[in-house]
Amino acid sequence: MTGGIRPGEKSIAMPSPGDAALIFIGHLLTPWQQRGECPRQGSFDGPLCRLVLDPVWAEALTGIEAFTHLQLFYWMDQARRDLVLLAPTGSGKLSGSFALRAPTRPNPIASSIVELVERQGNVLLVRGVDCVSGTPLLDIKPHRGAV
Amino acid sequence: MTGGIRPGEKSIAMPSPGDAALIFIGHLLTPWQQRGECPRQGSFDGPLCRLVLDPVWAEALTGIEAFTHLQLFYWMDQARRDLVLLAPTGSGKLSGSFALRAPTRPNPIASSIVELVERQGNVLLVRGVDCVSGTPLLDIKPHRGAV
Repeated sequence: MTGGIRPGEKSIAMPSPGDAALIFIGHLLTPWQQRGECPRQGSFDGPLCRLVLDPVWAEALTGIEAFTHLQLFYWMDQARRDLVLLAPTGSGKLSGSFALRAPTRPNPIASSIVELVERQGNVLLVRGVDCVSGTPLLDIKPHRGAV
Repeated sequence: MTGGIRPGEKSIAMPSPGDAALIFIGHLLTPWQQRGECPRQGSFDGPLCRLVLDPVWAEALTGIEAFTHLQLFYWMDQARRDLVLLAPTGSGKLSGSFALRAPTRPNPIASSIVELVERQGNVLLVRGVDCVSGTPLLDIKPHRGAV
């Protein structure tokens, strides 16, 4: 958890996180080494990124090639979790953290729709990611809706 | 973690879940008491359901009324986490757990788009939920895309 706090923003004494435990199933390799370099949102025109799965989960990719788009969940491990009111960059207005899609939230889970370009064993090549290289991956689901 | 295993399905010796810890921010109250009663997918024509937030997070809802639709993340706490190959009901075919949207997956995080009907303090009334009553809630984000 990193980052300061801006005027008007509000933190709480956060409950101890321990209601359930996550497993990192792998990580994302992207061109961006720092948060400030990342695009605001991923784009299907963006660079090819790699999802590298822990080999123990490789078989869980069986059949994934049938889908053109995937929903990824990843863990924004650099985000603060204890803020309830936020002042987003470029906005003078305070908003609740659930009324924003910023990484700063009690459970910093990001969800993105990406284009599946190719599977290479336990690695997926995708476009549409927006996060720092090394971000832990939580889940991959087929996406069937509009993109 | 509950549930048996079907012919051809495959479990692994799962890594100890402990890479990161979740906080349950509240829970969902729905008309369904058992998994078998739940609809296959939520519908905006479905019954009114209640998201009950832990009061500590109530201020994080500030401004949420501006949105007609929300993305909810919840924790499918009744799902097995150690299966890599699954035989979904009504299908003779085995698929990897990442090639399905079933609750059975290493991190059983569900994502749904719901319609926000009303906020009452730390409670949100919504339509479009599909899970068992009492399911732990992980996150609420504004949804701006197509529904």
